[in-house]
Amino acid sequence: MTRSALRRSGLLAGAAVVAALSATGLFAQNAPEGHGSGPAAAYQPSMTTLGQLGVELPGRKAGDPVMTPDEYQKANTIYFERCAGCHGVLRKGATGKALTPDITRKNGYDYLHDFITYGSPAGMPNWGTSGELTEQEVDMMARYLLLDPASPPEFGMAEMRASWKLIVPPDQRPTQKMNDIDIDNLFSVTLRDAGQVALIDGASYEIKAVIDTGYAVHISRISASGRYLFVIGRDAKVSMIDLWMDPPAPVAEIKIGTEARSIETSKMEGWEDRYAIAGSYWPPQYVIMDGDTLEPLKIESTRGMIYDEQSYHPEPRVASIVSSHYKPEFIVNVKETGKVLMVDYSDIKNLKVTEIEAERFLHDGGFDSTGRYFLVAANARGKVAVIDTKEDKLAALVETGGQTPHPGRGANFVHPVYGPVWATSHLGDETVAVIGTDPEGHPDQAWKVVQTLYSMGGGSLFVKTHPKSGHLYVDAPLNPDAETSGSVAVFKIADMAAAEPEYTTLPIAEWAGITEGQPRVVQGEFNKDGTEIWFSVWNSAALESAIVVVDDRTLELKHVIKDPRLITPTGKFNVYNTRSDVY
Amino acid sequence: MTRSALRRSGLLAGAAVVAALSATGLFAQNAPEGHGSGPAAAYQPSMTTLGQLGVELPGRKAGDPVMTPDEYQKANTIYFERCAGCHGVLRKGATGKALTPDITRKNGYDYLHDFITYGSPAGMPNWGTSGELTEQEVDMMARYLLLDPASPPEFGMAEMRASWKLIVPPDQRPTQKMNDIDIDNLFSVTLRDAGQVALIDGASYEIKAVIDTGYAVHISRISASGRYLFVIGRDAKVSMIDLWMDPPAPVAEIKIGTEARSIETSKMEGWEDRYAIAGSYWPPQYVIMDGDTLEPLKIESTRGMIYDEQSYHPEPRVASIVSSHYKPEFIVNVKETGKVLMVDYSDIKNLKVTEIEAERFLHDGGFDSTGRYFLVAANARGKVAVIDTKEDKLAALVETGGQTPHPGRGANFVHPVYGPVWATSHLGDETVAVIGTDPEGHPDQAWKVVQTLYSMGGGSLFVKTHPKSGHLYVDAPLNPDAETSGSVAVFKIADMAAAEPEYTTLPIAEWAGITEGQPRVVQGEFNKDGTEIWFSVWNSAALESAIVVVDDRTLELKHVIKDPRLITPTGKFNVYNTRSDVY
Repeated sequence: MTRSALRRSGLLAGAAVVAALSATGLFAQNAPEGHGSGPAAAYQPSMTTLGQLGVELPGRKAGDPVMTPDEYQKANTIYFERCAGCHGVLRKGATGKALTPDITRKNGYDYLHDFITYGSPAGMPNWGTSGELTEQEVDMMARYLLLDPASPPEFGMAEMRASWKLIVPPDQRPTQKMNDIDIDNLFSVTLRDAGQVALIDGASYEIKAVIDTGYAVHISRISASGRYLFVIGRDAKVSMIDLWMDPPAPVAEIKIGTEARSIETSKMEGWEDRYAIAGSYWPPQYVIMDGDTLEPLKIESTRGMIYDEQSYHPEPRVASIVSSHYKPEFIVNVKETGKVLMVDYSDIKNLKVTEIEAERFLHDGGFDSTGRYFLVAANARGKVAVIDTKEDKLAALVETGGQTPHPGRGANFVHPVYGPVWATSHLGDETVAVIGTDPEGHPDQAWKVVQTLYSMGGGSLFVKTHPKSGHLYVDAPLNPDAETSGSVAVFKIADMAAAEPEYTTLPIAEWAGITEGQPRVVQGEFNKDGTEIWFSVWNSAALESAIVVVDDRTLELKHVIKDPRLITPTGKFNVYNTRSDVY
Repeated sequence: MTRSALRRSGLLAGAAVVAALSATGLFAQNAPEGHGSGPAAAYQPSMTTLGQLGVELPGRKAGDPVMTPDEYQKANTIYFERCAGCHGVLRKGATGKALTPDITRKNGYDYLHDFITYGSPAGMPNWGTSGELTEQEVDMMARYLLLDPASPPEFGMAEMRASWKLIVPPDQRPTQKMNDIDIDNLFSVTLRDAGQVALIDGASYEIKAVIDTGYAVHISRISASGRYLFVIGRDAKVSMIDLWMDPPAPVAEIKIGTEARSIETSKMEGWEDRYAIAGSYWPPQYVIMDGDTLEPLKIESTRGMIYDEQSYHPEPRVASIVSSHYKPEFIVNVKETGKVLMVDYSDIKNLKVTEIEAERFLHDGGFDSTGRYFLVAANARGKVAVIDTKEDKLAALVETGGQTPHPGRGANFVHPVYGPVWATSHLGDETVAVIGTDPEGHPDQAWKVVQTLYSMGGGSLFVKTHPKSGHLYVDAPLNPDAETSGSVAVFKIADMAAAEPEYTTLPIAEWAGITEGQPRVVQGEFNKDGTEIWFSVWNSAALESAIVVVDDRTLELKHVIKDPRLITPTGKFNVYNTRSDVY
């Protein structure tokens, strides 16, 4: 049996994925033996019901549990911090199952209590047995889930303006670059748990600045001019950093909601640096801001109908946003409704939006090498939607053949057989789907998986290459095996004519010389020239992390960046590659 | 003091309006003397609170009243039937005040109980003293309003498809007109309380058919070809009637929500009869349907941000919808958010919507004589928004100078001084605002009130003229004075060069020879040739109503249509004028 056949058989992938997810701390271990008849079943909390009190209330059934306002408040906080990311703020389900009262009441208190305590192999964390929630908290959460979901507060223009800080107005900013940094080769590095970004010089590896931002910055984006760096935290805080200042520093900040993932700036010719846009998970909306000041200008709700069944969804979260190169448009990907919104920013008083029916659970993606097509993963559907940004239409829906594609922005290269292609790895297995992107030169292969590569194992987050590189790098930070999560697979593009190309393994974590913890190697990012690729060696906050620089030509270690300030480095964004959509 | 000065002084208008609204049965009489210290204050209902029960619940305060589920259900039904029209399904307020718990709890139980019992001069009906609600029901409603609003059910594709009836499929319909009706001169007449429309021949005055429809059909619209008649009830039931059948009969029906007002069909060249669209008050959304079958194809939510303050509104109701003559677009007017949506129907899989910031409380309106500009009343703001349907932009916001403009579709004519103009009367006073609509020929007058006419009194709903008519007709069906509400004012367009043109009064109700009740004369509608104008003489359901036909040249009575089937006739829609936007 070949390696790929073995992997395709599922003998390797299944257990690996569950274990991989567990290893991240984001997902659960399996329930222990005796689950359902063990300690949880024996536990009898004192649950007063309305029926016992002889009280009837609208929207409340006799069997409903009673919570004190204080308990409810605590449970609500735990829900938003721990549960909402997967189950949705309104509990409609997404990565996790729906937890609306019609479902939770059918399942009942004991079922919920057990699930919260022990988790499930499908990805629910074992909050109880892991010790992350106390017995009292588990009991409280089970009762909380039997009640109607609390609607979190809206966050409209009044709230945004109140949060908006114009730290340095445009007329007080430098009129020329005041530092000697080669901005185009600067890397903006997320320091996840520290709520910061580090700006690292691509040539000297020197940390030029460490800047306080929102929590767990999800992405960095660069204005078309290259001057301004925009970052957004998961807490929906946006920071706008002026790279001309010495040192670079924030000139504006704003909070655009409660939870968010995406930020972008206008890149169409004639509109450079004019606008910024940020999308939020809660409230489900996006906001167009002034590109010089972050002043919020126009908020648009994404609440509406799911594209296929056309039922109303109250919480369609905004996933990735990119800026079109063909039109003055932002491309806004709405997760739950499966719609791609082409938001024309040329006249925001008369906002024109083309709503493309694509596929549910849109997440991240990137352009093809021409910049015309945007490929976005519909991750829970195992598909990639291809958006033609010139025609504002869905060009194709591609089944990747793998489980939960997670492209980041994906990787574009010229395949020795199939011509221009774009690749994505998968969260749920070790495959890399290579998709043809050249409808004119290679019409038979366009928007089809032309090749499946088999990498080290499941739990991959990012693939990476560069127009000047001959390699495709695949990480596996969520793999449970420390050697795998600490390594990177490298495929030689020239070798891809083979049916099943082999890969080379680079022991990045080993090269970093980190001995404590299980550092995960994540997100390769090239320097401007495409000669080096940087990897984060992401350890827990209390332990040493690093960034490892690899020579792309020789695949040898070139440099290790270590610094006490480098706490939990994850995403890295090279200024030139990011602003030019080179990936 | 001239008549207009007297009226402008407010000596006539104020009391007249309140009384007028009362007269319709839709609004309240003043509270009696002793309001607040009378019987209501003495009434002490047995109101058990949660605090007294020693129970605390999330979202419930100690002082909250307790309702049984049965009481809550009954109160909920009364609320949707009696209150939601003015106060909104989610109680956010519109024509009536907001009734969200933050407000109702501050005002308290006694205040609510009194208001429901006695009403107010500002328009709240006296539900208690009128006997429409019992003392127990008033008590129940006051308690109901202290609790959080119940969210009414969504109505998505599944519900629409379940309600959809294709009575006669297209391939089973006649291939040529099977009757001898002159369809272009047919009138579709709403029989409000009967839940029917009557189809009346414009030449013979003969009732050709009476067809069961939704309740209180709000409007009739005609497909571009003239073959299909579409009507929508306030209960959101749409009926599609084939005028080629003998007799004309419904070929398809659908329910598109819980409450609705608007229907339209595609009229752009090349798209005739292709699509129908209906907008609903609840859920706040619109649906595009197949123009041959009413099959629902695409539902779009209107929930989102209010155009000016950009805070989220959960219930932005769809008011009027018209079909552009310049583009394959529907023009959808959203009341609470104040946005005009230009919905491009040329590709409904990739729906393009231009969202024009206009003004809050958009209601009804019509095109100018060229068909390029759509004038829509922002009624509670006393304004008319002018939409340029060629440029998809707001051309102007015009203050009408009157109270609550209610144009219906308005009236277009050529003013002897100011050239092409469009007029609207007002619900709240006797004025008619005449607005210049000719930016090329009369740029100084364009989108300005060029003249204010003073008609019989407040309570007007509709103005009417015709390209071949020399007259402008103004009704006043909501005026409290029986002589006024039973008459119509006629201005001679040629006389409008005078500063304050006089009008002639036509005693329509008197001409109808109806002696019982207070029949209200409403909504003039011209025949196809523009030689006759028809008025409904709208009496209560148990009494005789009529339609009066007036000779437009002589202003003399031409005919009275009476028939036992003519129960509560209100709106009338001439097929040719309606499908060609002649008004």
